[in-house]
Amino acid sequence: MPEFNAPLRDMRFVLHEVFQAPALWARLPALAEHVDADTADAILQEAAKVTSQLIAPLNRSGDEEGAQWHAGKVSTPQGFKAAYDTYIEGGWVGLSGNPDFGGLGMPKMLAVQFEEMLYAANSSFALYSALTSGACLAIDAHASTTLKETYLPPMYEGRWAGSMCLTEAHSGTDLGLIRTRAEPRADGSYSLSGSKIFITGGDQDLTENIVHLVLAKLPDAPAGPRGISLFLVPKVLVNADGTLAQANAVSCGSIEHKMGIKASATCVINFDGAQGWLIGEANKGLAAMFTMMNYERLSIGIQGIGCAETSYQNARTYARERLQSRAPTGAVAPEKMADPIIVHPDVRRMLLSMKAMTEGGRAFASYVGQQLDLSKYSTDAQEQQDAAALVALLTPVAKAFFTDTGLDSCVLGQQVFGGHGYIREWGQEQLVRDVRIAQIYEGTNGIQALDLLGRKVIANDGVALRLFTAQIREFAAPPGKPYQHELLQAVQRLEDLSDWLQAQAKLNPNEIGAASVEYLQVFGYVAYAWLWARMADVAQGSLEADPAFYTAKLATAKFYFKRLLPRIDSLEQSIRAGSESLFELDAASF
Amino acid sequence: MPEFNAPLRDMRFVLHEVFQAPALWARLPALAEHVDADTADAILQEAAKVTSQLIAPLNRSGDEEGAQWHAGKVSTPQGFKAAYDTYIEGGWVGLSGNPDFGGLGMPKMLAVQFEEMLYAANSSFALYSALTSGACLAIDAHASTTLKETYLPPMYEGRWAGSMCLTEAHSGTDLGLIRTRAEPRADGSYSLSGSKIFITGGDQDLTENIVHLVLAKLPDAPAGPRGISLFLVPKVLVNADGTLAQANAVSCGSIEHKMGIKASATCVINFDGAQGWLIGEANKGLAAMFTMMNYERLSIGIQGIGCAETSYQNARTYARERLQSRAPTGAVAPEKMADPIIVHPDVRRMLLSMKAMTEGGRAFASYVGQQLDLSKYSTDAQEQQDAAALVALLTPVAKAFFTDTGLDSCVLGQQVFGGHGYIREWGQEQLVRDVRIAQIYEGTNGIQALDLLGRKVIANDGVALRLFTAQIREFAAPPGKPYQHELLQAVQRLEDLSDWLQAQAKLNPNEIGAASVEYLQVFGYVAYAWLWARMADVAQGSLEADPAFYTAKLATAKFYFKRLLPRIDSLEQSIRAGSESLFELDAASF
Repeated sequence: MPEFNAPLRDMRFVLHEVFQAPALWARLPALAEHVDADTADAILQEAAKVTSQLIAPLNRSGDEEGAQWHAGKVSTPQGFKAAYDTYIEGGWVGLSGNPDFGGLGMPKMLAVQFEEMLYAANSSFALYSALTSGACLAIDAHASTTLKETYLPPMYEGRWAGSMCLTEAHSGTDLGLIRTRAEPRADGSYSLSGSKIFITGGDQDLTENIVHLVLAKLPDAPAGPRGISLFLVPKVLVNADGTLAQANAVSCGSIEHKMGIKASATCVINFDGAQGWLIGEANKGLAAMFTMMNYERLSIGIQGIGCAETSYQNARTYARERLQSRAPTGAVAPEKMADPIIVHPDVRRMLLSMKAMTEGGRAFASYVGQQLDLSKYSTDAQEQQDAAALVALLTPVAKAFFTDTGLDSCVLGQQVFGGHGYIREWGQEQLVRDVRIAQIYEGTNGIQALDLLGRKVIANDGVALRLFTAQIREFAAPPGKPYQHELLQAVQRLEDLSDWLQAQAKLNPNEIGAASVEYLQVFGYVAYAWLWARMADVAQGSLEADPAFYTAKLATAKFYFKRLLPRIDSLEQSIRAGSESLFELDAASF
Repeated sequence: MPEFNAPLRDMRFVLHEVFQAPALWARLPALAEHVDADTADAILQEAAKVTSQLIAPLNRSGDEEGAQWHAGKVSTPQGFKAAYDTYIEGGWVGLSGNPDFGGLGMPKMLAVQFEEMLYAANSSFALYSALTSGACLAIDAHASTTLKETYLPPMYEGRWAGSMCLTEAHSGTDLGLIRTRAEPRADGSYSLSGSKIFITGGDQDLTENIVHLVLAKLPDAPAGPRGISLFLVPKVLVNADGTLAQANAVSCGSIEHKMGIKASATCVINFDGAQGWLIGEANKGLAAMFTMMNYERLSIGIQGIGCAETSYQNARTYARERLQSRAPTGAVAPEKMADPIIVHPDVRRMLLSMKAMTEGGRAFASYVGQQLDLSKYSTDAQEQQDAAALVALLTPVAKAFFTDTGLDSCVLGQQVFGGHGYIREWGQEQLVRDVRIAQIYEGTNGIQALDLLGRKVIANDGVALRLFTAQIREFAAPPGKPYQHELLQAVQRLEDLSDWLQAQAKLNPNEIGAASVEYLQVFGYVAYAWLWARMADVAQGSLEADPAFYTAKLATAKFYFKRLLPRIDSLEQSIRAGSESLFELDAASF
């Protein structure tokens, strides 16, 4: 059976040493009152306990049993309810929530570490509260004070959950097509009718109530995405004093049979004249929903890192224990029937690829968390604005690059096990099935790539991009920085490629979509190069304090620069080949 | 529900137009008496019917029900037995079998097309007879006449099946470690004892008998791989007249719960003093088993192509029908609520990647089939010898490259479906789960890569490689050949890289394993470049005969050269970075 151990030492390395987060927290008043280095460490320690001891043990049984639907109600697998109750007692759902309504006000930089542990332990379980946290964020940012006061406290507590109701059968990426309707009622609320699909946690038996955030169209709404409004529609109606009243006209029609995350209920949710309340302005629902969506996008990115971390831990253990064949340079364990397979160069290549991408991802997620904290809590307007621009730029990269490389790492981890990786017993095949969804939901990775290149780089005239690359150049400028030459070359390449694409897009709008996925990959590899250089820089300076730990960081950085970063060359060539070869076939000739 | 349509037009293109197979068959006497262009077309037509109408409809139900084990017996899913009976009536199991014992004597080049259809329709079903065909090959090549006369006819008929019993719990890649024992009996037969795992089709309810080919050690055998012998061990003993006698001491202890190919029984098979017969010479069992193994490796490679073809067909249909958003250059279906997603450049990129790799794979599999036919049937000693050398060189490439890119294509096909790709309904998630095993079994793709670079290129001093690259150079030499420059550059690169690795390996044995996986990828891309240039060459010359078909070939070739072949650049850089960065960490520091 696989076992999950939270990578606490690595997380502290990123938080304290690479980003010196406690110093940042100390200068941001809204954070300084809640957190310092010791609090953060205590929280990480406790998070490690909860995720590895309470939640991880339910991962396999949850997959085997799956969420079940019967007569309109979803039941989660055995053990989920009890674990959930213990979990919410710890206040985890409101970890980075608004303290005015019962949240703990912790920095996002810390919360991303916790999210990684949660997904690493059990992706299905993690989703039930991930959606709640995102829904809270949207309510906190856009809803009326009354709605906030009514809904946020029980949601931060975890007694009530959140859901995100966007997709309809005929409308996924293209939300302008939705048909769910909202009719105004006399009391200022609305009556919602329509059917939503793929609703994660749309029903479950863990919480007393579920707060659906629903995209719908008002009667007089303009066509397309500019005619979408956002509504709060509780499963159970709520009295003025916050107690539960009668059931709302919301029902769960069925759940999907999926490749993975089987313990997470993916629901069809029907609204049959259900009572709801407008969040934010009429017809501006898409923007309000994006507050939640962007949160979920980072969160789902982190699912990629979490699953990759577990896959790596399992594969590493197996590679140290499994005896098979001899090292190419001669037996290293002559007293045994064969050497452990970790002696083989190709097994090391697989493990190091996983290690480099997972730790690079953790550093990148922490960096995005840092920018989220600055955009929320900085008292310097320029700093706040820059951070918000960086968050917008980097969110699609985080979502897509973490999950693309997350699948790669889970597949590699499965490969290390040989035939044993394909059977249920070792847990590796479940990781591959579970992580695969992360490239698809919350906007497919293709959509993330279009968002990055089309909206965040080209439509932004490269302003946010320059903000980002300036940070890289600033780091790499002083003489003696590790991998200075490689890093400066890579960042120059990203800038040149971006400029070239900016020009190309003016000639032919197809150039954006023809380049976007590979461009996002180039972006990701360059960003990780920066983060690996930063990690190597810290490790070099601390080598004597813990030689084994810091040597491993330096070795992984070297592997990254030598064997992974070169991937940008081929990606760039493919991008520069342009869209022409994509459009020579008509649809019928495929 | 997905539907499989055999790509007959494409298969005929490869067979008749690219390789001009009928002309080859006509000059090989052993083939000329059995096959010509018309026979081949009739067989393909019939194969298309059987696979798409009889076998494909059992793919999803087979996955849902799975093979079941109860009280030592395996039952296959509903419908498998009836379909199998119809299937074997067509003589398909003996398609390329030896006519002296009831096989149909058809060329391998034709059989590979049939195998592709079979895997495309239903990978689990395909495996039940794939192992039989491979076992027949080993028996035909190495067993005594009595064994051949007794076992081959019912196996070619499909009334009896074959299995390949190599792996033990502690011995997978490293077969020298096996513990199964064979004790001589007075009558010249042997008594086998031991336990084998991961035995595909080790038990089932489709055939009257199962003929296990088992690796075991004789009492006086030397240690390691030079002490392994091969035995034929039937599930049911056979009387001298070929009728079935009593059960042998062979039992199925359990089956595995797997990620995919759930309708294929993966068995633990126990031999408790079971009676068996030696195949070939004592202690030379590994070489004899490799006759079967090499067959299976190509076959499993073709599983990658078959699954990719089905994934492509499904994704293409979906992309033409699913309406979502507008084309970047303006609406193409303004009368509809949105455009079909095939207008989007990134969807086209995904479809073309699948198309280019699948059709490239089909051409490569057909080429390997051609060399297998020449190595078996050529009357020219040199031609026969060269062909055998090419088969040895190319088999690991076919196995690993078809299946690595097969997974990629299945993942891309799933991605085209967005959220719908993750649920059972559309069949895409099953393809991903089913194809994933092909990178693992019959020797992991890492092992294939070591075989290619270590044994087939370096230990062979590049002789077989030069045989292969000479064919590419010969094709590309005449002026005016399509992609002449790109192809010659790519083949030069493969040769230079091979020479460099040959030198490196002398300095440090770790260099082989550090480079092997990426080297195999470079090899695969260069081989496909040759085949795409050949296909483009034919298409160019035939354009007027069927403009839509040949234009599609030219467009796909262009896409391949512009957007996929550049991948070799980064792979080469990673290889040339060498093994150093793989060995800076000790096992404990991972």
